[in-house]
Amino acid sequence: MAGFALIGVAVGILGVLYAVYLARWVLRQDPGNEKMRFISQAIATGARAYLFRQYKTLAVLLAVLAILILLAIDLQRGTYGLTALGFIVGALGSMLAGYLGMYVTTRSASRVAQAAATSGMGKALLVSWRAGAVMGLSLAGIALLLIAGFYLVFKAVTHDWAVPLVALGFGASLVTLFMRVGGGIYTKAADLGADLVGKVEAGIPEDDPRNPGVIADNVGDNVGDVAGMAADVYESYIVTVTAAIFLAYILGLPAQYIEMIILFATLALIATFVGVNLLKTTGVKHPLSSISMAIYATIALSVVLFFIGSFLLGLETWRALALAAATSLGALVAPVILKITDYYTSYNYGPVRRIADQAKISPATVIITGYGVGLMSAIPAVLVILAALGVSYAIGFYAVPVTAFGDYSKYLAGIFGTAMASVGLLVVAGIIITADSYGPVSDNAGGVVEMTGLPENVREVTDVLDSVGNTTKATTKGYAIASAALAALVLFIALIFEIVDAAAKIQGVSMLTILDNSLKALQVINPSVLIGAFIGVLLVYFFTSRTLEAVGKTAMEIVEEIRRQFREKPGILEWKEQPDYARVVDIATRRALGEFLVPGLAAIIVPLLTGLLLGWNALAGLIMGAIVAGVPRALLMANSGGAWDNSKKYIELQGLKKTDMHKAAVIGDTVGDPFKDTSGPSLNPLIKVLNTLSVVFAYAIIFTNIALGIYPFGLLPLA
Amino acid sequence: MAGFALIGVAVGILGVLYAVYLARWVLRQDPGNEKMRFISQAIATGARAYLFRQYKTLAVLLAVLAILILLAIDLQRGTYGLTALGFIVGALGSMLAGYLGMYVTTRSASRVAQAAATSGMGKALLVSWRAGAVMGLSLAGIALLLIAGFYLVFKAVTHDWAVPLVALGFGASLVTLFMRVGGGIYTKAADLGADLVGKVEAGIPEDDPRNPGVIADNVGDNVGDVAGMAADVYESYIVTVTAAIFLAYILGLPAQYIEMIILFATLALIATFVGVNLLKTTGVKHPLSSISMAIYATIALSVVLFFIGSFLLGLETWRALALAAATSLGALVAPVILKITDYYTSYNYGPVRRIADQAKISPATVIITGYGVGLMSAIPAVLVILAALGVSYAIGFYAVPVTAFGDYSKYLAGIFGTAMASVGLLVVAGIIITADSYGPVSDNAGGVVEMTGLPENVREVTDVLDSVGNTTKATTKGYAIASAALAALVLFIALIFEIVDAAAKIQGVSMLTILDNSLKALQVINPSVLIGAFIGVLLVYFFTSRTLEAVGKTAMEIVEEIRRQFREKPGILEWKEQPDYARVVDIATRRALGEFLVPGLAAIIVPLLTGLLLGWNALAGLIMGAIVAGVPRALLMANSGGAWDNSKKYIELQGLKKTDMHKAAVIGDTVGDPFKDTSGPSLNPLIKVLNTLSVVFAYAIIFTNIALGIYPFGLLPLA
Repeated sequence: MAGFALIGVAVGILGVLYAVYLARWVLRQDPGNEKMRFISQAIATGARAYLFRQYKTLAVLLAVLAILILLAIDLQRGTYGLTALGFIVGALGSMLAGYLGMYVTTRSASRVAQAAATSGMGKALLVSWRAGAVMGLSLAGIALLLIAGFYLVFKAVTHDWAVPLVALGFGASLVTLFMRVGGGIYTKAADLGADLVGKVEAGIPEDDPRNPGVIADNVGDNVGDVAGMAADVYESYIVTVTAAIFLAYILGLPAQYIEMIILFATLALIATFVGVNLLKTTGVKHPLSSISMAIYATIALSVVLFFIGSFLLGLETWRALALAAATSLGALVAPVILKITDYYTSYNYGPVRRIADQAKISPATVIITGYGVGLMSAIPAVLVILAALGVSYAIGFYAVPVTAFGDYSKYLAGIFGTAMASVGLLVVAGIIITADSYGPVSDNAGGVVEMTGLPENVREVTDVLDSVGNTTKATTKGYAIASAALAALVLFIALIFEIVDAAAKIQGVSMLTILDNSLKALQVINPSVLIGAFIGVLLVYFFTSRTLEAVGKTAMEIVEEIRRQFREKPGILEWKEQPDYARVVDIATRRALGEFLVPGLAAIIVPLLTGLLLGWNALAGLIMGAIVAGVPRALLMANSGGAWDNSKKYIELQGLKKTDMHKAAVIGDTVGDPFKDTSGPSLNPLIKVLNTLSVVFAYAIIFTNIALGIYPFGLLPLA
Repeated sequence: MAGFALIGVAVGILGVLYAVYLARWVLRQDPGNEKMRFISQAIATGARAYLFRQYKTLAVLLAVLAILILLAIDLQRGTYGLTALGFIVGALGSMLAGYLGMYVTTRSASRVAQAAATSGMGKALLVSWRAGAVMGLSLAGIALLLIAGFYLVFKAVTHDWAVPLVALGFGASLVTLFMRVGGGIYTKAADLGADLVGKVEAGIPEDDPRNPGVIADNVGDNVGDVAGMAADVYESYIVTVTAAIFLAYILGLPAQYIEMIILFATLALIATFVGVNLLKTTGVKHPLSSISMAIYATIALSVVLFFIGSFLLGLETWRALALAAATSLGALVAPVILKITDYYTSYNYGPVRRIADQAKISPATVIITGYGVGLMSAIPAVLVILAALGVSYAIGFYAVPVTAFGDYSKYLAGIFGTAMASVGLLVVAGIIITADSYGPVSDNAGGVVEMTGLPENVREVTDVLDSVGNTTKATTKGYAIASAALAALVLFIALIFEIVDAAAKIQGVSMLTILDNSLKALQVINPSVLIGAFIGVLLVYFFTSRTLEAVGKTAMEIVEEIRRQFREKPGILEWKEQPDYARVVDIATRRALGEFLVPGLAAIIVPLLTGLLLGWNALAGLIMGAIVAGVPRALLMANSGGAWDNSKKYIELQGLKKTDMHKAAVIGDTVGDPFKDTSGPSLNPLIKVLNTLSVVFAYAIIFTNIALGIYPFGLLPLA
């Protein structure tokens, strides 16, 4: 039955090869004139320099953590360093994902610009879409390859192979967390700084080469939006699929169930091979519907393949169908979430227009109303997630044969149903990344067009592509959050049973004998759990606060630098002097790297200390608090940011640029920038770091709990 | 041993009499010239009209709920309509508190203005402080009287007297919720509307009589800040003390423990009698420190009295001392929270100055940084609450003799320790209300001074009083939130045991036999609990969103009306035409009443439906979610609002009024207005409504759960 894992490895490699083929196609396109290549080069250099400095800083931390994992986990459990290995490989994977994203985007931008200049919309769309597909296919391919491959290898080495597999997710999510925070601070501080002085004070357009912050701004797009989102969806994939496998392991399900998870991921990738070719590019005026169709077609095809594939596993037919249904349910959550996000963030609907309306009276009411819209937008999205949780739980409850856990068996069977739904939601990630990565490519292309002074009609093409990219970007965020929520819930349950398992092993008893009594410690009325839940919420607050303030502080330095350059070199604005781009790039790099460590370290230290000192049930409370506070907050921040952005665009569409109304909307948009691109997106990996970290360190935590006598009731023993 | 309850009744009456005495003193002061009296009259008329219309709207809802309680609870439990009675009296008490606050403030304003004009700072401070003390003493007196009196009466009528006592809190918190929402929308919409057109567009000062919104703005202060906060602290007092009594009842503690709660409340009121006389008024330049001293002295005296009083109860000495210590711990939380709030919201410290600094670059970064400061401010405040919870739990764990609950006995003993801490925090409410009510009195007095054109030096006196009032107002909010958090946690635990008790009664078994198995349903890994927790967070989001957007919408109508008046009557600005104040008052009244029902009804319907359809453990999850999301959010909104307000004041102090920097700060201040005065303060009563409602309806919910077979595991049975 190891056959499907092998096929998974093969299809994963195929995905990477397909990506290489598409990359070569993209690189064969005309990169434009010398000036275009020069600007692309400058952006690529800045982005590469930032990423490498960031990776260098992270390397020390990762090495320390790997050694810690080796000593505290692998040596104790006798897992031959596999947990540390998984952690390191997962982390390297995220770095690679970020680098790839940056590389593809910066290479493609001038080519898209050139295609827009010479062949118009159709070709420009095709080039940027295929650049996106390079990302989508390679990341999904690498993720599948790593999971299936490590599953085979780890399983061959030890029977205790599941925690090392989760370590893969821990490494991936931890690096992503740092990339999200650092890149997010960089991109929004540079964007804010460049816009505040350029657009607002000097009155020059976006991406104008006279603006000393223009290169930093474009570098930011690449290290923040591109590298960050690529790593984010990649790590979501790894975490979700390994979480489901881990759960199946903990539950002692037959090997078919694990094979099924890998098989479904494989089938979805095959569907993606087809899906990326379904984009209609000829005769397209507004490409959003073509892109949506390609996404929907891929999801539909995946669902069909899930049902067909489910018969290959040798399960009873009704079980196979039920599990395919649970998985499909997850895949179908994606379009629903995309629609909800669209409703709250697009100017075709009421919410964004209400915000735009408030611009008639004051920037303050724009902020108030936009914040209100963001809060409201979280409600239907979370309800959809809860409905998916409920229905998939019901399916699993009846269809999954868990028996070894006494009273808890049916319950755990239900959770496995939810795990399959989360897998279904995630395995269509390839096409989602494709649609998402396409956005920044067009955005960068627009920058190249502007900076090289290509004609207005070329800018119009890239503007259309860019505005569609904004929508796909906003909807991808909703998708990423929904998937993080389901994955986190599954992993949360898996964590609890891993902890009880570890406790049983340490005490040399059977898990079942201590199960019921241990889980008592998880009652919500237990002070440890309540205190933990509050700490989880506070961690989300700390994280959001630090990242927001970091953007403010960094932007301030950049504003002062740009103002200084305009003041000291008055020739810049008259095209007579060259601005010093490098200095702004340097400030952004230095500050972003200075600010990104503390929030990330808090995500490691706070849960570890809570688990070690207040007890494992306080840690469980922490994770629950972080999930229930973090998921709605991530939606709030992403959607309010998107809504503010588009309410500004809506006002511009009415020809009201430069009015007071527009100015009010610009302030809303600026507030929304770090909401949607720094703090909001960091919450996704945060939640997953908390979860995966806890699974990886569960053994050490529970060991210490028992040694200190704070097992099982944390703060104070219940009896 | 009913002696202390009788003494409580007597001291409660004494408090009311003392308040009457002080009120007569205030009313004997010179009410100023005819114009001053006229303006005070106009404000009082508008405020009274609003409150009465609001009460009339509420009357229908309250009547329906009272009948529902009578049928679904009293008839089923055989409690002779006491629950419905408690509910109605509690509700009337909140209405009275709101009315009293409005009455005292509107009557005192012109007298404080006159005192400032004729006798200067010392006398003006004394008049406004005593006006505040009228509120503080009467509310604390009425609350104590109601609790002690109803305890005696209910207990005489039935042995099932505890739920009716909580119904007192349900009525009080429900009315407060509606008053907070309605008044909050009114006050901030009027404030925003008047300021946006008056200060920003027409360039006339605050409270200028040419502004058509000026009366509505002042009415708003009275129906929102004054009536709302008075009702808020009053209901917190009722809910907290009845929750502690309820817990003692559920735990079957000896009568001394209930007497102790009433005794400590009585002693704290006696300490308040002394405390209100300790304000130094002669030779005072900046009255904040005098006020702080009066508060600290009252708390210190209360603590001393707690320790002395604990010996009167006939408990073993060490138990008495331990419980006095737990109660004192709660009382000492008050000054710590006041200090934390002060740090994050006063311009003497870093956070507010950081926000002011950002005004140099843009309004957007002011918003971003202020929001970050608000998020961060929640962290130390919640940690203090958690520390109080932990320590008081530990005290209770060792000192309270609970034995009837098997394994859970020690645990419940711990919770009773926390209940005593929450009582300690709340019973010093009298002096806190005094300090808080003093603020709006001075604010209104400043309005009277401005509108009647009294000389600049008089305005200076009321300005100083007003700015101190802003600080006491901000710190009172932190206090109210902290007390709500502790009270909610205690009530949450009490609710769970009430539910199990109800389930036992309905099934005709002993509570102990079903306890352990029932509480299994409360494990955080139960999908029902998780789904409930998410619903709780979403309810907080819904509430915040609706109230914020209501302010935006209402302000927009007011802005349009004021603009229309300025446009159609150009003579207004040249003092030649009279603005139509009544029309703005009417718009604010109509809209606030149109918007206040939906959020309030959601607070009733969502928990009831969750409990009835998803099960009582989902309801428990909901309450937990609402507490862990609501408490930090209330702090975030109150403190960011305060910080924005004071960063604007800090810039004004540097003489930078009318600069771009000031304009940026004004936008922050305007965003903060509904944060701190509408949405934030509504979260306090929301949390308590959810709790008390659930206790009151627990019997009906659990009855339905059992009938529908969703007891005990909610969504799907665990086994």
